[in-house]
Amino acid sequence: MAVAAQLLRGAARSPPALALAAAAGRRALGSAPPGAGAAAAGQGGRRAALAAAGALGGLGLGLWRRQQAAMAASEEDEKEEEELRQRFMAPPVSGLRELRRRRRELRSRMELLIMETQGEVCRALAALDPGAAFAVDTWERKEGGGGISCVLQDGEVFEKAGVNVSVVFGLLSEEAARQMRSRGKSLKAKDGKLPFCAMGVSSVIHPKNPHVPTMHFNYRYFEIEEADGTKQWWFGGGTDLTPTYLNEEDAIHFHKTLKEACDKHDLKLYPKYKKWCDDYFYIKHRGERRGIGGIFFDDVDSPSKEEVFQFVKSCAKAVVPCYVPIVKRHCHDSFTPEEKLWQQLRRGRYVEFNLVYDRGTKFGLLTPGSRIESILMSLPLTARWEYMHTPPESSREAEILEVLRNPKDWVH
Amino acid sequence: MAVAAQLLRGAARSPPALALAAAAGRRALGSAPPGAGAAAAGQGGRRAALAAAGALGGLGLGLWRRQQAAMAASEEDEKEEEELRQRFMAPPVSGLRELRRRRRELRSRMELLIMETQGEVCRALAALDPGAAFAVDTWERKEGGGGISCVLQDGEVFEKAGVNVSVVFGLLSEEAARQMRSRGKSLKAKDGKLPFCAMGVSSVIHPKNPHVPTMHFNYRYFEIEEADGTKQWWFGGGTDLTPTYLNEEDAIHFHKTLKEACDKHDLKLYPKYKKWCDDYFYIKHRGERRGIGGIFFDDVDSPSKEEVFQFVKSCAKAVVPCYVPIVKRHCHDSFTPEEKLWQQLRRGRYVEFNLVYDRGTKFGLLTPGSRIESILMSLPLTARWEYMHTPPESSREAEILEVLRNPKDWVH
Repeated sequence: MAVAAQLLRGAARSPPALALAAAAGRRALGSAPPGAGAAAAGQGGRRAALAAAGALGGLGLGLWRRQQAAMAASEEDEKEEEELRQRFMAPPVSGLRELRRRRRELRSRMELLIMETQGEVCRALAALDPGAAFAVDTWERKEGGGGISCVLQDGEVFEKAGVNVSVVFGLLSEEAARQMRSRGKSLKAKDGKLPFCAMGVSSVIHPKNPHVPTMHFNYRYFEIEEADGTKQWWFGGGTDLTPTYLNEEDAIHFHKTLKEACDKHDLKLYPKYKKWCDDYFYIKHRGERRGIGGIFFDDVDSPSKEEVFQFVKSCAKAVVPCYVPIVKRHCHDSFTPEEKLWQQLRRGRYVEFNLVYDRGTKFGLLTPGSRIESILMSLPLTARWEYMHTPPESSREAEILEVLRNPKDWVH
Repeated sequence: MAVAAQLLRGAARSPPALALAAAAGRRALGSAPPGAGAAAAGQGGRRAALAAAGALGGLGLGLWRRQQAAMAASEEDEKEEEELRQRFMAPPVSGLRELRRRRRELRSRMELLIMETQGEVCRALAALDPGAAFAVDTWERKEGGGGISCVLQDGEVFEKAGVNVSVVFGLLSEEAARQMRSRGKSLKAKDGKLPFCAMGVSSVIHPKNPHVPTMHFNYRYFEIEEADGTKQWWFGGGTDLTPTYLNEEDAIHFHKTLKEACDKHDLKLYPKYKKWCDDYFYIKHRGERRGIGGIFFDDVDSPSKEEVFQFVKSCAKAVVPCYVPIVKRHCHDSFTPEEKLWQQLRRGRYVEFNLVYDRGTKFGLLTPGSRIESILMSLPLTARWEYMHTPPESSREAEILEVLRNPKDWVH
């Protein structure tokens, strides 16, 4: 039950109306033993019917009470499920009932977290672009698992905004397994194949206005079973910003919000993952970072599953507060055709990074049966490559390039 | 001398005025022994001066004749050099004098061939787009070698047309060497490094009009020295077409011209290299080829260096006759905004192939000190990615997709 409460606590950052309902549910679940808490809830038709049946059948008081409590719990479950359903963009891959049945398992908690995050982010973005709507596609992977892709395309504010959830499992080739682990830990496979489960929420938001930066985030969990039955698990993730033009205030807000999320868990995390982000999003052949960074981590399997999960949850909850204020601040800024052109050239660099270096993309393209449209949703609607384009010295274009070449510390 | 004649024979397909001069030079060189041929040429200032000096110094008739012949040859050389200079877009990386000094070596002949091809193609394209001009950049690679990049951008007919020559040498890491050889032949390195020389001409032409296809070609030569001093050498190359819409007449013309070039050498080559092309330009994650193919080969080191070189030369000479008639036929075709949009989506696929799969691009990005702007010149000026774009059944967009999914035989 503590687990379910935890999941719901996360949901308290949903839009206000939904958050209130969730908070009520959470309090009821968290503050009293299961039976008592459930009994305190209102009467339902099925419970009344059971009470009547109990009376008619002459059941003993103890049994009657237990049955009544079970029914109450089941009703409570239904209520909770209904609330979750409203917060999610589609039914979860593993099924809501199954997830709640296995609610103590980290895999289930993580799947609920990524579903919640998808819902939260989609609602927050849709609220900023009222004329546009997210198209929601659920898909199955014939080798095991599936996903939910939410994409808003050609809106007023967003050129292309995608928020994907995927939960895939099955057998992995050794080559794909190698791509998965950044530290190259050896994985002992049976007959060259490794049973695995990979799940995550991943998103890229490309706005139209060149004064609104592109944002990316991804939080993921992996389990892989070696030949001797040992399970390796790890988390990865990050949130990072790619502005077309530098705005220091935005950069500070973004990094500060991430730092706060990290600091709740360990003061060492933000500096470490900020550097990892700058190192990871490096377009080597250009000598530039993709953007002004944020945080990035991979292969994290300590101090404990629970602690890493809590950290990942804090990061996921920080996505909306990191980004939405920046979009609001600039989505009505005026811009020139030259600024739009510079944005398009930067989009080209984004494509270069994602197709040449990004491990997630490579892993996706290698995984048999993966959904290509969801993986390549990260690419912008439009991009441009000009031969030998060099911005003039001291221009605003040169200013952002300087920061991409020499990352800055934004919060100290 | 036979070698030099060969080089000039190639040049006979240059624009008429230059071809005439070259042909004259070739005849003089090819039809008589060096001294005699040279003596038949006109008088030059330096030769007259030497003759006078000889007379004054009382030299014997034999020595005088030999000196006169040497001077005549040197003048002939100068004339030839001047002609080559006019046909090239810039001075060759290895220097014209040096190339002519080492004229019997295949490396030199190949460098002259790629220079000639660059000149030919650039002139032919510039003639189709009169308002635009090729920007010519020569560049040096600090680790050894350099190149000449010719790029025409945002013309009336061409969105982006690049024709590059590069001649690079130095030491290769084992990783880069692995990327170079498609058949993964083992290369024994000394201290993990392999001395190499790589040269080639490579080009991508992206036209504006969606009814004019994109064309790519690349002809290259490699030498690599193993730890024991053994030299491995091989040729690679190909020419292929990427239409936005299918035009059967164009497809047949293109493939037929390539087949004719191949058939002169061996009837087995076209079918073999046509299939290799369809296999190589495969965007695996899309289940589509990049275009309607052409020819592609790599790692070719038999039957002999000379024979492979002659074949490569025939292919290089076929580039202009393959493509230019197609551009002429369609560059004034009218088109709709929807057709332009479909072109942009296909450009996106082009980017996907080049950045994710193309071995040449990967090799370039891995080679230390390589010139990124020249490598990524292959990317279109603009590209587009729409989530879940699917053309309607029986549309012209679906028609080309069908051919990209199931390559056709165009010449039988």
